[in-house]
Order: sequence, then C-alpha cells, then structure tokens
Amino acid sequence: MKFRLILSFLLLASSFTAFSQERQKGNNSAVAEKGLIKVSVLYPFAEGKTFNMEYYETKHMPMVAGFLGSNLVKYTIEKGLASGVPNQPLPYMAIGIFYIKSLAEYQAAIAPNIAAIRADFANYTNVAPVILVSEVVR
Amino acid sequence: MKFRLILSFLLLASSFTAFSQERQKGNNSAVAEKGLIKVSVLYPFAEGKTFNMEYYETKHMPMVAGFLGSNLVKYTIEKGLASGVPNQPLPYMAIGIFYIKSLAEYQAAIAPNIAAIRADFANYTNVAPVILVSEVVR
Repeated sequence: MKFRLILSFLLLASSFTAFSQERQKGNNSAVAEKGLIKVSVLYPFAEGKTFNMEYYETKHMPMVAGFLGSNLVKYTIEKGLASGVPNQPLPYMAIGIFYIKSLAEYQAAIAPNIAAIRADFANYTNVAPVILVSEVVR
Repeated sequence: MKFRLILSFLLLASSFTAFSQERQKGNNSAVAEKGLIKVSVLYPFAEGKTFNMEYYETKHMPMVAGFLGSNLVKYTIEKGLASGVPNQPLPYMAIGIFYIKSLAEYQAAIAPNIAAIRADFANYTNVAPVILVSEVVR
C-alpha cells in the first residue's frame, strides 16, 4: 500500500515535470546553447528608422522559422532598450536570433526563400539589418 | 515485487534526469530567457584589432560575473564567424552576454568595479566594445 502511494506520487511528479518542460519549450525554449550556431539579425537604431515589433513577432519570425525545419533549435526576439556605454545612442532597436545546428543546412533552407524574406522587410522596418553568424563557445 | 521494480526504475530515471539538468546548468545553463534583460558586449571586427578568447573566457567574464551575484541568471560567450550578408565583413569578433533580472541591480553592482573591468580590457583586446541593453520579448 505504501509502495502504491509512493509510486503514484512519483508518477504524478514526473508528469508534472514533463508538462512544465513542454510549456517552457513552447514559449521560449530552455535549451543549452553551447556548441550551437547563432544567426543574429540586428536592426540598427537611427533617426527616422522604424520597427514594428508586433508584425516581426507574429508574422516575419514565424515565417522564417518555418523555413528552417528541425535544424532550428529555438529562436528569440529582443527589443533594444539603451546603450550600455554612457552618452552613446541605442545601437540596435531589435534583434532576432536563430539558434541552429548546421550553418550549411540553414543556408540551403534560406536560399530558395530569400526573395520572400527580403520582400517582407518593408512590412515592419525601413532599416537594413546587420547579420552576424557566430558560434556559442560557452 | 513488480511494484518494487517499477519503483526502482522510476527513482533511477528521476535521479538521472535531475543529474543531467544539473550538468547542463553548470555548463551553459538551460533557462528560459523571456522577460530577462540582456547586456550584450559586442567587440567589433576591424583590420588590426585583436581578441584573446582564452583570456576572455577564463579570466575576464568570470570576474565580471562574480560582481553580479544572484541577479545574474546566466552568461554566454560567442565567437564571430562571418557576416550573414554576402560580401560584408564580419561585424563582431566576439560577444559576451549577461542575462540579468534587474538592470538597476546590475548597474549598482558594476559601478564600484568599473575601473577594474576597464583596466582588464587591455589584457584581451584593443577594441572598444559596443554595449546593448535589451529585453528578451520572446
């Protein structure tokens, strides 16, 4: 009887753990980043430049993520707040980051869709992004 | 008897899960980033500019992380590989990122140590970083 109790508790506890992990994944995906390739799309801030975060988050990024398939481990979006260097202007208004396993696969997936991706830029910004490909070393 | 077997298996499985999660945390910290503040320290690439990744990873970043206490959720380091825009130079050689809960607490922790942090720059690079404070929105 005691065993049954412990067993039910353990089963309950493990389902709960599985459930919370699933939820996290759906939202923002808690995965270790070390060893992954990052493609960071940085939108510079400047006088007269605009950025529609709502469109970017609900339309543009999901579209690009859809092209990447299982090579995409997760993606994140951030909103620039300030420069960390006193008396310097905000460097970037927004950043979109794709965490991928293979750069070659990423390039092969993006190439046939590059026209659609570029055509969508005008729907949310009037600035050309800086794009950095990097490797997470820690 | 059967219950005992299932029970041992479950206990074993959950210890193993706990162990792998702990390991991940120690290495690179798998945490959900949404809602956190990011302080990204970006080192621009240019002709004649240098960056000692080994010193940065083993000395500089651990020193700064040590100043931040429990406000620091995790930090990551990345190595710039290429520009994602064809025919453009590499934008950044390296990036160090602190994921923090409170910007005010970060500033209060850095202020009394800023001289030590700046003095250490010369030990690994000859380029002034761009620093972006941003909020992870997704």
